[in-house]
Amino acid sequence: MSRPPLDFYFDVFSPFAYLAAARIDALAARHGRTTDWKPILVGVTVMKVMGMKPLPDYPLKGPYLAHDAQRLAKLWGVPFRPHGLRGHSSVKAMRAYVWLKARDPQLAKDFAMAMFRKLWTKGEDISAPQEWAGETQALGIDLAALTAAIEGEDVKQALQADVAHAIAAGAFGAPFVVADGEPFFGCDHFWMLDVWLEKGAWTPD
Amino acid sequence: MSRPPLDFYFDVFSPFAYLAAARIDALAARHGRTTDWKPILVGVTVMKVMGMKPLPDYPLKGPYLAHDAQRLAKLWGVPFRPHGLRGHSSVKAMRAYVWLKARDPQLAKDFAMAMFRKLWTKGEDISAPQEWAGETQALGIDLAALTAAIEGEDVKQALQADVAHAIAAGAFGAPFVVADGEPFFGCDHFWMLDVWLEKGAWTPD
Repeated sequence: MSRPPLDFYFDVFSPFAYLAAARIDALAARHGRTTDWKPILVGVTVMKVMGMKPLPDYPLKGPYLAHDAQRLAKLWGVPFRPHGLRGHSSVKAMRAYVWLKARDPQLAKDFAMAMFRKLWTKGEDISAPQEWAGETQALGIDLAALTAAIEGEDVKQALQADVAHAIAAGAFGAPFVVADGEPFFGCDHFWMLDVWLEKGAWTPD
Repeated sequence: MSRPPLDFYFDVFSPFAYLAAARIDALAARHGRTTDWKPILVGVTVMKVMGMKPLPDYPLKGPYLAHDAQRLAKLWGVPFRPHGLRGHSSVKAMRAYVWLKARDPQLAKDFAMAMFRKLWTKGEDISAPQEWAGETQALGIDLAALTAAIEGEDVKQALQADVAHAIAAGAFGAPFVVADGEPFFGCDHFWMLDVWLEKGAWTPD
């Protein structure tokens, strides 16, 4: 009997979600597992639900996290360049992910990785569909159809429902993984995810 | 030439600092290193400097952290029992640590571990010196002298200065380790601390 996929909650807005996205499928595969990439919006979970500021804006913690992302990228060999964008948004890109996933999950994942790379290796804005021309063309996605779709109420509501499900599952940031009911927040918990997938219990190491 | 000790910032208030305290010396020793246990006050760094609420009070993140501490304790084989105390404080215990450290660093560390265990395995209040009778007696510490000392202005100011130094070093919570200039927040970064002490660089693994 095959085991259920690991739920991988991501938001292309998050640098740590990008780094995690570059590793999670291989990590899961080492344990004979697959993943289900699910959307979350850190603007909703971190700011609205938890009532925090954007994490980069906190003194001390903000600079620490910026450094942490850069060293993790080096350690994991993932191309990464912090951007200086402000006022950008991942909401439309995440809506696009939802719409694509309903049609072709692998294509949706490829689109998400293209958005991650655009933002986190090129420092290019991903807020609006007109900025996705190169990426959608490379992936054979009809940008006009996608642009129309993500303005539809059903897609907006589908993303809202997904984020509500993520919150109900306990996810409060990105990346967040739920593996057989066990929650893991952040790249820095991947070592514990590895232990959990290996042992299925929290017994002394 | 012997290398400098790792700076280990702790506050007996923090469950994760307790779990880290049970591991950090052995981790350092595996790399031929020693540690210098330095005080921090999460009530100052988290609440005053960063302007956050106490982390257990955040929705979603609070319950996650509570679970995370319990599974980490099981995984690391560290006795741990969450307490239901409210309104307690570690300030006087941390002042006591500062006073003891100036006299006998190892005794100060033993006192800190006794406070950690009292709070995090027995759920007993550690706010005031009259609650430390058993622990100080077991360690051969003169409780009357300690009680008098921690009400002195010089000890109060010494702890304040230590916390200011911790903040200047970038520490914003506990546990926090600085190893050869590199900062590590949380037990969940101990795997990266291990990598850093092994390699001294962030090169692909």
